[in-house]
Amino acid sequence: MKTPVRSRPPGVGRDPESPLPALPGASQEEIRRQNLGAVLRYVHLHGPTSRAQLTSRLGLNRSTIGALAADLVASGLVTEEAPTTARRAGRPSLVVSPRSDRVYAHALSIDADRLRAARVGIGGRILDLREVARPGGMSAVDAVKPLAELVRDMERSVATDTLLVGGAVAVTDTTRGRDGAIRVASVDEALGAALEAEFTACPGFVAGDLADIAGLAEHVRGVAAGVDDLIYLHGDLGISAGIIVGGRLVIGHRGHSGKVGHMVVNPNGLPCGCGSRGCWETEISEAALLRHAGRDPADREAVAEVLRAAADGDRTAREAVERVADWLGFGVANLVNVVNPDAVVFGGSLRDIFTAGADTVRRRLDAMPLPNSRSHLRLRAAALGRDAVLIGAAELAFDKLLADPLNVGVVARAGGTDRA
Amino acid sequence: MKTPVRSRPPGVGRDPESPLPALPGASQEEIRRQNLGAVLRYVHLHGPTSRAQLTSRLGLNRSTIGALAADLVASGLVTEEAPTTARRAGRPSLVVSPRSDRVYAHALSIDADRLRAARVGIGGRILDLREVARPGGMSAVDAVKPLAELVRDMERSVATDTLLVGGAVAVTDTTRGRDGAIRVASVDEALGAALEAEFTACPGFVAGDLADIAGLAEHVRGVAAGVDDLIYLHGDLGISAGIIVGGRLVIGHRGHSGKVGHMVVNPNGLPCGCGSRGCWETEISEAALLRHAGRDPADREAVAEVLRAAADGDRTAREAVERVADWLGFGVANLVNVVNPDAVVFGGSLRDIFTAGADTVRRRLDAMPLPNSRSHLRLRAAALGRDAVLIGAAELAFDKLLADPLNVGVVARAGGTDRA
Repeated sequence: MKTPVRSRPPGVGRDPESPLPALPGASQEEIRRQNLGAVLRYVHLHGPTSRAQLTSRLGLNRSTIGALAADLVASGLVTEEAPTTARRAGRPSLVVSPRSDRVYAHALSIDADRLRAARVGIGGRILDLREVARPGGMSAVDAVKPLAELVRDMERSVATDTLLVGGAVAVTDTTRGRDGAIRVASVDEALGAALEAEFTACPGFVAGDLADIAGLAEHVRGVAAGVDDLIYLHGDLGISAGIIVGGRLVIGHRGHSGKVGHMVVNPNGLPCGCGSRGCWETEISEAALLRHAGRDPADREAVAEVLRAAADGDRTAREAVERVADWLGFGVANLVNVVNPDAVVFGGSLRDIFTAGADTVRRRLDAMPLPNSRSHLRLRAAALGRDAVLIGAAELAFDKLLADPLNVGVVARAGGTDRA
Repeated sequence: MKTPVRSRPPGVGRDPESPLPALPGASQEEIRRQNLGAVLRYVHLHGPTSRAQLTSRLGLNRSTIGALAADLVASGLVTEEAPTTARRAGRPSLVVSPRSDRVYAHALSIDADRLRAARVGIGGRILDLREVARPGGMSAVDAVKPLAELVRDMERSVATDTLLVGGAVAVTDTTRGRDGAIRVASVDEALGAALEAEFTACPGFVAGDLADIAGLAEHVRGVAAGVDDLIYLHGDLGISAGIIVGGRLVIGHRGHSGKVGHMVVNPNGLPCGCGSRGCWETEISEAALLRHAGRDPADREAVAEVLRAAADGDRTAREAVERVADWLGFGVANLVNVVNPDAVVFGGSLRDIFTAGADTVRRRLDAMPLPNSRSHLRLRAAALGRDAVLIGAAELAFDKLLADPLNVGVVARAGGTDRA
């Protein structure tokens, strides 16, 4: 995944051979750019906000906020309007709103079995969404063409006075072979090139791990908003994590962190699609639940039926849920010992499995002998559902605009011509 | 552990209810402070550096560097001297050096069985070091008094024209009870108060996890210098980790991350001092090695003997090393799947165990089915030895000075009076 600029903590040094990073710039132009970004980011995250609120929240003075808002209005990124209801006497403070209808990003998702494409407006609103099946054996690179087709289809109904600011794609790391067998996807260096070739009107298309991106969305707009240290666990065909520490994604070498599904938790367990044995995902995946419930492990549609049966008191289904939930708690305890986050969020198919077996998961965690890791820990079902992946991808795509709002000349309408 | 200011990545938001952090200040005073900090930090990390090199490394112009260096000289933090060997014609560039003899911090360590106190000069030089045994049953809070005694003893021989800039203490999380049994230390909120009461001349005494601090030292000045994503594994009585992601320590909730010794790797394994069963540390600790070698698990002195016997071809010792090394590789593989760092560094007693069993550790990791996590991964023995903990603690203690070099009036000579 593309990451943000990193700042270094005091006391933590660089390679003695490499120069230190450049110092924060001192120029007025840089300050103005940062302030424009701060205003735009604020309304992007919090929705319509009065000038007065912006003034107090951003610690800038009134005239500065007025000038910044005027610049953003002139660029077509926000609107300014009088509030619909003036609550007190005097001249009301204008309300600054992001132009979600006009300014948008392309957010794509390559799930295990589905391909999805959305237009997401600034402010995080899904404006349009298309979805097709992803056949077994289709690589992420091969998925780019059908995704581009979905995007072109959406673009046909876009008004002319709109601004496409970028795009991002979330890619699952667990796929299905042509034979239906589950495989861990290896990194595909060719993906970047394929995206660039197909999305010519949208340079700098970003690709990232699906669990990282869904976790980011839950952190920015979902159940973990305001929580800076969290583990987001995503169940799809496999199990992955998006780990956020100090408000930033832990991306690992070339974006390959969070392969928590392949922690070995049961050395004597079942073979895993990755080639190892006893991986966590052999114990907590949808397939594990289905297996314990006596169902076809490949029949994903049956997961909901098993959970429903468990809720209705079916004993086999209930035991299947508890067995999976117990291993879920076991692995979460291990992760908590390593990272010690403030929250663990369960998303994708793990959301429903967690919800069904939450008591068992909590019991396993309560048995953890290290109370300092447990007492503050919140376990939460994800809030954004299937939208999380698309909303998270859009956040990545908006990064460049939010860092430098008036300098979006490099991107343009998909399929259209570049606009300065 | 105390941490550094966090910056947020683009696209990652805050609690909608909380104000955004203040924007980077625009004032000339703030810029000067940052630049002073950058120059001082540079020579702190890299040693004596010419003005010309500082100019190019920091991206500032010559006259700015000259003015900053002059300010630092006036404050007694650095010296400026003509180079001893002028390599070419023309006026030689003055060399800026940190005044390690004058400017120093108190670095303390509460190990499982030892208490250590050092004076560390700016630039990371250990100027003086005292050490006493830590009796079984002595809490971290109880260790503060004898540590303060060691510090007072060192202070007696300190020249008058010196500047104490702060102090920090590294605390192990695994201790020995009065009965000799190994225990996981619970957080002691009282430690901060005890430090404050004892080190009155040195406000803001920082406490942190020993493995975090030793890992920081290896990252700043040791075998992982220049590596921004690493896991440092520390073997003492127990096993802990310092995890550094993007150049920053992962500290977790209240500093409790990296309890990797308590990942359960063997659900059918031995009981652990923490109250659980089959924790990683039951398989890779010094005690495990001694047990497999048929020695008294409590006899820490025998660890070196076992490693020497293994090197000499003793079969029992060799098998003991391989068994521990295999579990070491097993757990490292799990951690690598979660965090995917660029390096894993083995320190404390794990340093020697890793060195003795490196082939076995590597074999276990080579068997990992996810090549994207393995190919780039470097396994390294720690470079700083027992000094790592003290050097890392000093880095923490220097933080405040490096952030604002001319405003060190809040700290003073230990036992002396505050100097403005």
